[in-house]
Amino acid sequence: MSPASPVYLDHAATTPMHPAAIEAMTAVLATVGNASSLHTSGRTARRRMEESRESIAAALGARPSEVIFTAGGTESDNLAVKGIFWARRDADARRRRVVTTAVEHHAVLDAVQWLGEHEDAETTYLPTEADGSVTPAALRAVLEAHDDVALVSIMWANNEVGTIMPIEELAAVAAEFDVPMHTDAVQVAGQIPVSFADSGCAAMSVTAHKFGGPTGVGALLLRRDTACVPLAHGGGQERDVRSGTPDVAGAVAMAEALRIAVEGMSANGARMRALRDRLIEGVLAEIDDVVVNGSLARRLPGNAHFTFRGCEGDSLLMLLDANGIECSTGSACTAGVAQTSHVLLAMGADPETSRGSIRLSLGHTSVDADVDAALRVLPAAVLRARQAALASSGSVR
Amino acid sequence: MSPASPVYLDHAATTPMHPAAIEAMTAVLATVGNASSLHTSGRTARRRMEESRESIAAALGARPSEVIFTAGGTESDNLAVKGIFWARRDADARRRRVVTTAVEHHAVLDAVQWLGEHEDAETTYLPTEADGSVTPAALRAVLEAHDDVALVSIMWANNEVGTIMPIEELAAVAAEFDVPMHTDAVQVAGQIPVSFADSGCAAMSVTAHKFGGPTGVGALLLRRDTACVPLAHGGGQERDVRSGTPDVAGAVAMAEALRIAVEGMSANGARMRALRDRLIEGVLAEIDDVVVNGSLARRLPGNAHFTFRGCEGDSLLMLLDANGIECSTGSACTAGVAQTSHVLLAMGADPETSRGSIRLSLGHTSVDADVDAALRVLPAAVLRARQAALASSGSVR
Repeated sequence: MSPASPVYLDHAATTPMHPAAIEAMTAVLATVGNASSLHTSGRTARRRMEESRESIAAALGARPSEVIFTAGGTESDNLAVKGIFWARRDADARRRRVVTTAVEHHAVLDAVQWLGEHEDAETTYLPTEADGSVTPAALRAVLEAHDDVALVSIMWANNEVGTIMPIEELAAVAAEFDVPMHTDAVQVAGQIPVSFADSGCAAMSVTAHKFGGPTGVGALLLRRDTACVPLAHGGGQERDVRSGTPDVAGAVAMAEALRIAVEGMSANGARMRALRDRLIEGVLAEIDDVVVNGSLARRLPGNAHFTFRGCEGDSLLMLLDANGIECSTGSACTAGVAQTSHVLLAMGADPETSRGSIRLSLGHTSVDADVDAALRVLPAAVLRARQAALASSGSVR
Repeated sequence: MSPASPVYLDHAATTPMHPAAIEAMTAVLATVGNASSLHTSGRTARRRMEESRESIAAALGARPSEVIFTAGGTESDNLAVKGIFWARRDADARRRRVVTTAVEHHAVLDAVQWLGEHEDAETTYLPTEADGSVTPAALRAVLEAHDDVALVSIMWANNEVGTIMPIEELAAVAAEFDVPMHTDAVQVAGQIPVSFADSGCAAMSVTAHKFGGPTGVGALLLRRDTACVPLAHGGGQERDVRSGTPDVAGAVAMAEALRIAVEGMSANGARMRALRDRLIEGVLAEIDDVVVNGSLARRLPGNAHFTFRGCEGDSLLMLLDANGIECSTGSACTAGVAQTSHVLLAMGADPETSRGSIRLSLGHTSVDADVDAALRVLPAAVLRARQAALASSGSVR
């Protein structure tokens, strides 16, 4: 007897591809043509690329010429943070400060840290509220105190605790000070309504595999008036900001996935919110000593993030996995490294109790039975993880 | 009546995917799992990633830990050139010279140029022989004259004229001077035998879509003892040299394509050489005032590159395209920009006559009928392109 399919509650790490996106991608994989070539096959590839660009732009409230295809969220974040920093500093050597938050994804955090260590940047981290957000007032205070800011980078929603930032208000403050603002929108594109134009941001990172497209393709949305030094020089593709042979199949699949995600957003979002709320309420009802992290009001539709006091997140994750429930202790990208989440620490959580944190994230394929299974398995798993933590602390001390 | 399929003679720009590679990729696209996640689906994705890494390493004479997955050749080149430059300069501020050739792909040329303009690097270009190669003696002379060299970057084979460089001998000279050497092996991987270990290079760029894999995935082979500053910081994937959610489907397809290419290399190479030689001989027999560019002895099996005196490459390309023959005037990556190839200029070609150059490149799907078609169409197309150039020069002057 083969084991049942696992219950996948890690959609924030990556979500299954939409079958229509797989189909669209596979159809392109069977063709040939470098989109930079001038012959018929090349021009056909180029047309597919540009149609994908137009479709993605329309879905995200942007102009086609603002869409720079990349290999994904991490590249988009690095390109925006480093590229805009360099462009601003090159134009005015005094502008060498990067303002960001302590709750960013490591793709932004580590890019900013590198600018500090390697490129002589000054770095300022905005104070984090208890729910994981930052306030426009805090950004205003920093921009009033410093006239050397090259750029601001603030994520649209947090990938761990799911809190949605007041991104339009934050961008409005940055605009008042004439500072370009980048936002990591990896968790929001395809999940909640996103308009690049209305956001007021100068740059925005998205990646396909978070909304039902393939891994390995994403985009940086970049306003035409925002200079950005490339990370990859070469053939001059993508407005000369990102060189490389265009990934036509990836772009086509990304466009198709985003189209489907945006078309189904309203119905799907309501469904995910209902599932999520039932999951959160069930956990609070069945398990003691548990905290829901992040904002309840301004929260990604699919995110549930808990701290179960008195246990280790990694053991809980493994116990859940053994019982067919797949989830995460934090960002997938730093999973495997046993450390307290930098997001929870920035939110003022106690380092010790925060270790018992897990993220259960729902997505477009989630159904009632997934929540039922999680609620069935979680209480006993938490109990066992707590017993294991007690035993281990007893034996060590 | 639908038009016949075009005769595709632009395999050096991109070559059709092997059907088995499409199949392997599609199978992975239908699964879910972030290879950085700890649960069962994540571990399965991770295993697929590592199996692909092992397979690619074996095919290229490298160790698995030397394979850094990237988004393709341009990223690999930029990562090697900038990353090794930074690492060497950071360790010893005096080491700020990059030695390269004037016939590199723009991904290397423009990365080196950026280091010169933006990062205060010194740049030295090795003299080019008439066949497009550089000699070990020329490299030795430069390394004897300069003790501030951070790295050497020399392509394994030229993408335009197809000349294969004496890469092992060049790397041996670099090693004598304790300077790491990078090679852009994008045109050779899967085409001729390549061993990273035996090459003596410290870093080597490859990309999947040149040997029957998908676009959007490639690798930098990087020796463990060669420090390299990342372009993309974040989750710490790929030995912390290249962060980003692993592209499992891309890696699996790349491994499968390379396996097929290497297994069929001997038979396929002999077949391509025979087709290519028949194409070259046919052109020389049928058309006057034509030069074959690049080395005849040390040449990529699929490359034929001609200068037809007295015409424009772009008009010839369009005339051929209209007659169902797809080819290129140079690198696809700079196609669309009407300028004489930097490769031909470096080889000492006359700027005026060199404009009438085209590359016909064969690949794994090429058959006798493709060469027949090219030889049938070319003479009249060259004649018309020459007449057009004459008429146009008459009207302008």
